[in-house]
Amino acid sequence: MPVPGPGYSITVRAEAPAAASSAGELTSAVGDVGGVLTAFDIVESHHDSVVVDISANVLNEEHATEVTDALDQLDGVHVRKVSDRTFLLHLGGKLEVESKVALRNRDDLSRAYTPGVARVCNAIAVNPEDARRLTIKRNTVAVVTDGSAVLGLGNIGPAAALPVMEGKAALFKKFAGVDAWPVCLDTQDTEEIIRTVRALAPVYAGVNLEDISAPRCFEIEARLRESMDIPVFHDDQHGTAIVVLGALRNALRVVDKPIEECRIVVCGVGAAGSAIIRLLKRKNPADIIAVDSTGILTTDRDGMDDNLRWVADNTNADVRSGTLHDALAGADVFIGVSVPNLIGADQVASMARDPIIFALANPDPEIDPLEAHKHAAVVATGRSDYPNQINNVLAFPGVFRGLLDAHAHHISDGMLVAAANAIADVVDGDRLNASFIVPSVFDSAVAPAVASAVKQAATGG
Amino acid sequence: MPVPGPGYSITVRAEAPAAASSAGELTSAVGDVGGVLTAFDIVESHHDSVVVDISANVLNEEHATEVTDALDQLDGVHVRKVSDRTFLLHLGGKLEVESKVALRNRDDLSRAYTPGVARVCNAIAVNPEDARRLTIKRNTVAVVTDGSAVLGLGNIGPAAALPVMEGKAALFKKFAGVDAWPVCLDTQDTEEIIRTVRALAPVYAGVNLEDISAPRCFEIEARLRESMDIPVFHDDQHGTAIVVLGALRNALRVVDKPIEECRIVVCGVGAAGSAIIRLLKRKNPADIIAVDSTGILTTDRDGMDDNLRWVADNTNADVRSGTLHDALAGADVFIGVSVPNLIGADQVASMARDPIIFALANPDPEIDPLEAHKHAAVVATGRSDYPNQINNVLAFPGVFRGLLDAHAHHISDGMLVAAANAIADVVDGDRLNASFIVPSVFDSAVAPAVASAVKQAATGG
Repeated sequence: MPVPGPGYSITVRAEAPAAASSAGELTSAVGDVGGVLTAFDIVESHHDSVVVDISANVLNEEHATEVTDALDQLDGVHVRKVSDRTFLLHLGGKLEVESKVALRNRDDLSRAYTPGVARVCNAIAVNPEDARRLTIKRNTVAVVTDGSAVLGLGNIGPAAALPVMEGKAALFKKFAGVDAWPVCLDTQDTEEIIRTVRALAPVYAGVNLEDISAPRCFEIEARLRESMDIPVFHDDQHGTAIVVLGALRNALRVVDKPIEECRIVVCGVGAAGSAIIRLLKRKNPADIIAVDSTGILTTDRDGMDDNLRWVADNTNADVRSGTLHDALAGADVFIGVSVPNLIGADQVASMARDPIIFALANPDPEIDPLEAHKHAAVVATGRSDYPNQINNVLAFPGVFRGLLDAHAHHISDGMLVAAANAIADVVDGDRLNASFIVPSVFDSAVAPAVASAVKQAATGG
Repeated sequence: MPVPGPGYSITVRAEAPAAASSAGELTSAVGDVGGVLTAFDIVESHHDSVVVDISANVLNEEHATEVTDALDQLDGVHVRKVSDRTFLLHLGGKLEVESKVALRNRDDLSRAYTPGVARVCNAIAVNPEDARRLTIKRNTVAVVTDGSAVLGLGNIGPAAALPVMEGKAALFKKFAGVDAWPVCLDTQDTEEIIRTVRALAPVYAGVNLEDISAPRCFEIEARLRESMDIPVFHDDQHGTAIVVLGALRNALRVVDKPIEECRIVVCGVGAAGSAIIRLLKRKNPADIIAVDSTGILTTDRDGMDDNLRWVADNTNADVRSGTLHDALAGADVFIGVSVPNLIGADQVASMARDPIIFALANPDPEIDPLEAHKHAAVVATGRSDYPNQINNVLAFPGVFRGLLDAHAHHISDGMLVAAANAIADVVDGDRLNASFIVPSVFDSAVAPAVASAVKQAATGG
């Protein structure tokens, strides 16, 4: 049963009688239809009437109408206006560009702009590496999307993807002081995306690819990495893989199993699943079984693309075949990055002792976490309303902070593993338990720890 | 004789004897070699010595060394360190990206990012015009260059151009509250520039082209205007043309001549010259004579490109031929956007009564303004150390503010003329004279006046 959250929060402005009972009737009306009241403010007060703002969390658009109607139907109550607080917050966008230098007078202008700026330009023309010292390049990351795989919404295009990229940029700044800028491309052609990102490179010290659909995302990332001298990170792949790897490290501590003895089932072999498998390989688990909608992946499957071929060649050492349920029998870990409601409590029961379940499909996981808990030792999801949320916010700000601080030209799997370990290690032994395998996304220790680990891995220092 | 300005300002940290005469010797030493002292700060004071920071404006790198050496050679003085204040100001770049929304807790995150942001994305997917309401597009302009014609420095490339674009973005914010972002393209191929800018469009409500060399800039601008639904402005063309047109309007008021009776010589037919001629045409001067290094432009010249052909077809009604000097004889106005030192006082004397001279070549004008003043009624240059500076800062911030406020999809010559008139009209009759035909770049009335005029022209309101 879903609970109304702050992601859908409305404020209803209504006129109501000034009678003492009025407030009680209004708040009850919201609760009676399942709304969660979050604020009640008197805006105007008259002799026989008041104007109030009633804020409430609701489930969805229909539910918002239900709450509004419930208020409007009360005796003497008249709803004037309904505001959606999420939309109010987005008016005019979420980012702005600020000047770091004052431009108060002619002297300021002469230094920051012409004629003084010409000497700075010349210095960079003579020594291109000076761009990292004398321009925004030093601290600036492009958040690049083509809008082809946005959240769970699919291919909604670059304009509709912009609110997500703005949010991402806001998080970059908040958690790691990185200046990130949205680049929403009006093309979904692989070659044109590659060409465009390369053309934009002079301003940026890193590229964060975002919400680009598989399998194009693999080629785009690989080709950009080959041809650019700034690090390229695909958050849907590497961000997710880092946090999963860090969470798994702590989950295995909880159940006291070495990863070298674990059989790990990864369900979903898209962007996230492939990256998780690639990073897991660096930890030498006993075996990884990759599963998709066709069943367990084996090397003899027909029509595999390069990505699937690599996964097939590097998993399933025991050459198992069959369904997801077959794969789970006797396995130690389930990592789902696929679709809702694939398994039940029985499948968890069929796993080895103390099963670990990461059910990360969003917004609805592969198994209801309450079901999973019947037999699992540790359960994690992508949701914020359960313990152990696997959230990329734990990774990307610190990763880029570290890359920028190291003046890194490339990114390596070693840096990703270092980031994963750093996230895990923020949860010290005293706090570690089955409901706390990853730190809170608001833990301000995470990004600096990740940044420091990545910088060290990048500089070998 | 050039005067040291704040664009090249150094701070010398030196140890000196604590004797009372010491400060006098230090400041004299700076002045003796032509440095302009701007600050003298004691940093440390000991029994028999002091450490001082001496700030001074100098002419160039050699002059900086001369000043530093003069100090170091004083008895008992030891120069520890020389800092260049222009470079200090540029460390780490001049812009940052700020979040306009707080991200303090889970509720904030749920609204600005997932899951709440998904509803905003969906709203835009359903109604694309909502992007101007719910994203940064509303207030955001791309400042696009390929680094091919940067200031007077030439083709220094995109990385070295970035400090100029950052400065431009800072001016956009300072004078008009516009969020501008530098786009420095690592390509000088016309087709690739066009393709790239088109691909970037979803994030921006306008494009400001900057420092792209002619004749490519004409095709790039024209093709982008044809194919995009956001306004495209090339500052080197239209910004300059607007300010020249506004300044000319006031200069003609000073000498009391109607433009319809004026013969105007435009020297230089690159980006700026062509745009000036196009905009002047809308004011119906008696004639325009275009001149370049080959002499007066006539329709029978061989090998003209499209731009030059248009200019030839639309100027020189009396079919004059010859040199720049021939063109000036009897002319009312000279507008130079070419190279230094082309004319002398004699040529000004050969013009009609009360000549108007706009000598805009930078940093050295077509004629020394002191020479020009011997016979001219009004003189303007591009320099900040003479009266009547023709500076694009008067135009571009207000133009884009107006375009953004109007939600304009295109830009027209009518809007450019409206901007020019607005700049001229900021100088009211009481203040107008031969040394004050344009307002100060720091006059805060300019950008709002320009914005309002452009918005009105754009909306027909």
